[in-house]
Amino acid sequence: MGDVKRIVLLGSTGSIGQQVLDVIRIFPRKFEVVGLAGGKNLELLGKQIKEFQPKVFYSYANSDLGRKEEFLSMKEMAGLPEADLVVVATSGKAGLSATLAGIRARKTLALANKEVLVMAGEIINKEVNLHQARILPIDSEHSAIWQCLQGEKTKPRRLILTASGGPFFRYSPQQLEEVTVEQALHHPTWKMGKKVTIDSATLMNKGLEIIEAHWLFDISFENIKVLIHPQCIVHSLVEFADGSTKAQLSIPDMRLPIQYALTYPQRLTNWQLPQLDWSKIRALTFDDVDYNKFPCLKLASDAAKLGGTYPAVLCAADEVATELFLNQRIVFTDIARIAQETLEQHQGISHPSLEEILAADVWARKFAASLLKHPKTQFSVKRDLLNQSTAPAFISSKKRNKK
Amino acid sequence: MGDVKRIVLLGSTGSIGQQVLDVIRIFPRKFEVVGLAGGKNLELLGKQIKEFQPKVFYSYANSDLGRKEEFLSMKEMAGLPEADLVVVATSGKAGLSATLAGIRARKTLALANKEVLVMAGEIINKEVNLHQARILPIDSEHSAIWQCLQGEKTKPRRLILTASGGPFFRYSPQQLEEVTVEQALHHPTWKMGKKVTIDSATLMNKGLEIIEAHWLFDISFENIKVLIHPQCIVHSLVEFADGSTKAQLSIPDMRLPIQYALTYPQRLTNWQLPQLDWSKIRALTFDDVDYNKFPCLKLASDAAKLGGTYPAVLCAADEVATELFLNQRIVFTDIARIAQETLEQHQGISHPSLEEILAADVWARKFAASLLKHPKTQFSVKRDLLNQSTAPAFISSKKRNKK
Repeated sequence: MGDVKRIVLLGSTGSIGQQVLDVIRIFPRKFEVVGLAGGKNLELLGKQIKEFQPKVFYSYANSDLGRKEEFLSMKEMAGLPEADLVVVATSGKAGLSATLAGIRARKTLALANKEVLVMAGEIINKEVNLHQARILPIDSEHSAIWQCLQGEKTKPRRLILTASGGPFFRYSPQQLEEVTVEQALHHPTWKMGKKVTIDSATLMNKGLEIIEAHWLFDISFENIKVLIHPQCIVHSLVEFADGSTKAQLSIPDMRLPIQYALTYPQRLTNWQLPQLDWSKIRALTFDDVDYNKFPCLKLASDAAKLGGTYPAVLCAADEVATELFLNQRIVFTDIARIAQETLEQHQGISHPSLEEILAADVWARKFAASLLKHPKTQFSVKRDLLNQSTAPAFISSKKRNKK
Repeated sequence: MGDVKRIVLLGSTGSIGQQVLDVIRIFPRKFEVVGLAGGKNLELLGKQIKEFQPKVFYSYANSDLGRKEEFLSMKEMAGLPEADLVVVATSGKAGLSATLAGIRARKTLALANKEVLVMAGEIINKEVNLHQARILPIDSEHSAIWQCLQGEKTKPRRLILTASGGPFFRYSPQQLEEVTVEQALHHPTWKMGKKVTIDSATLMNKGLEIIEAHWLFDISFENIKVLIHPQCIVHSLVEFADGSTKAQLSIPDMRLPIQYALTYPQRLTNWQLPQLDWSKIRALTFDDVDYNKFPCLKLASDAAKLGGTYPAVLCAADEVATELFLNQRIVFTDIARIAQETLEQHQGISHPSLEEILAADVWARKFAASLLKHPKTQFSVKRDLLNQSTAPAFISSKKRNKK
């Protein structure tokens, strides 16, 4: 590779994808976009193709978008011979097969699509070792850990993932039942896509990050702790064998971990990023997590320890449940209930193949969705609301007991 | 070097020296003490020699201490062919010539004696480069910065040294005038030797650390900031070009940075060290420094920027003034006044030789001491106290003005 790093960007029209292009715009001499893959937002993808003139492109919705640019599948694009770095900024399971294709082409991949590792971490790591590929994290927490691990010769003792706690950290269980979609989409510190914003509010996001951290850094789940840190300045901490702890700090802005992954192992000056001002930071506070109030974190931890197909099932059920919540079909606390019921009914497979993982994903999506139509005893349904298509079909056991 | 690291320890009977031996005791298979140099505490040095049976020893006070062990000067000991690591835990200018001897013998030196770099940083760095020696920091702040810099390829933008603020951080200027020796020796978080405890209370210690950090990490004085952090959990921070900041944290205990320097680049498990307990840490707080209330920090910063012989003069004047304060000859705030007057009267030499630095040291000690006998206009002397040998001869201009 020469002075210019050639980038393939999968998921260019999403929140992370757009910020990847923001960083690339700052350093026009450092990067060349050779491939862009977008989703359904054709207008934006069209603009991006016009601006960056990649050699190849992919669109989920329209293969007729480029002019001189060649249409290529995401899998092909991830293995593009001229790519120095493949940025996987897709979401859900969309990036899984492309990530594997990139690994098999011995690429370095910057991974923002956490479900890839959550669903198939064991397979991904095996393939990475086999093909001597490399995965660089983009998630702010994992970037923080990665930054703290630079140059360290000894395996850390413990990882401490920080969590903002989301907008409802101080809500009572009763208040949590009544959370609206609008409230849940209003994250106190991070600007993110809808799915991950809801996942942050349920703390499912932090649960998935535990699994991601496990596969990225080879640390047992017992040694990955979550700590509430509402200011979102400390992005995570690493505790070493001697008891020394390192932390990475910054104003919360995804462009920083994105830039770090893009420019690694160098760091480039970027004054467009907000700077920490120590004359304004008076206190960094920390708190423990209430697992009873935020059962999604516990579910993720359980799924992680069960392993096999369970994390993929959790991902799928969460995706379905979050979508149902966003469409006001269920209440906020039902997200955890659907995830739990789906996990409980799943027949897990250990050391699954990719096909078995994808089959578990399909099963979990169907099962989770079916819970809306065929309520289990664990869930109660307001009979008078059942016939209204947009009404919440799941309500809390608390509400049922009141009847 | 084999599996066992062979250690020469200069200053074994001081606070740091004793803690170096504490760490070595934990890992008997990792270290062998081949040389011990102690000060005036003959009883302790005798015990240490008996326990560790070094090949060579040095005593400031008595050359007749060892039995089969060979007496050697500190300079000779620092260049001992079989030494893998020379720990310089002396204080003041005592370690200067030995450090230079170790550098010229191409040794790796773990340096706790900050005055060595403050007085002669330019010369030390030149010699280190010439002889391809290496200096590892032991001071907790510099160890923190060093740990944060591991694996980083890009020069940092800024260093942020944390300071506890000492016991008098919230004192009024009036209260500072009335500080007793006993109060000043009671540091809120760190257990240290007397000199450095007083330096922590005046913040002179932090000023000297700025100069030390400059020479260790090649960062301009403008880019070394001090931040008050009363909990002493964050030992310092490093801000990188991209705005990312790393911090190193631990319960304040000098054995950790000592162990890190001894075992570098490895980290060894040591459960005797206190562990951070995140269920107890609720807040880390930060505050700006009041340079008016703590003029020693400003003086150090000024001396640093003037360079040449000024930092050596500051060190010497501070050592004399601190001793005078400990002997109740001057009041607490006179320490800064003596340092300032000595700096102001000094005829600086830029890029001085070692001889010129040592001459400046001798001059400064004489001049600072003379201020007690021959008060300058800037200092006022309580005439009725002047004839009492143990009375404070310096009082504040405030007190004078009140008369």
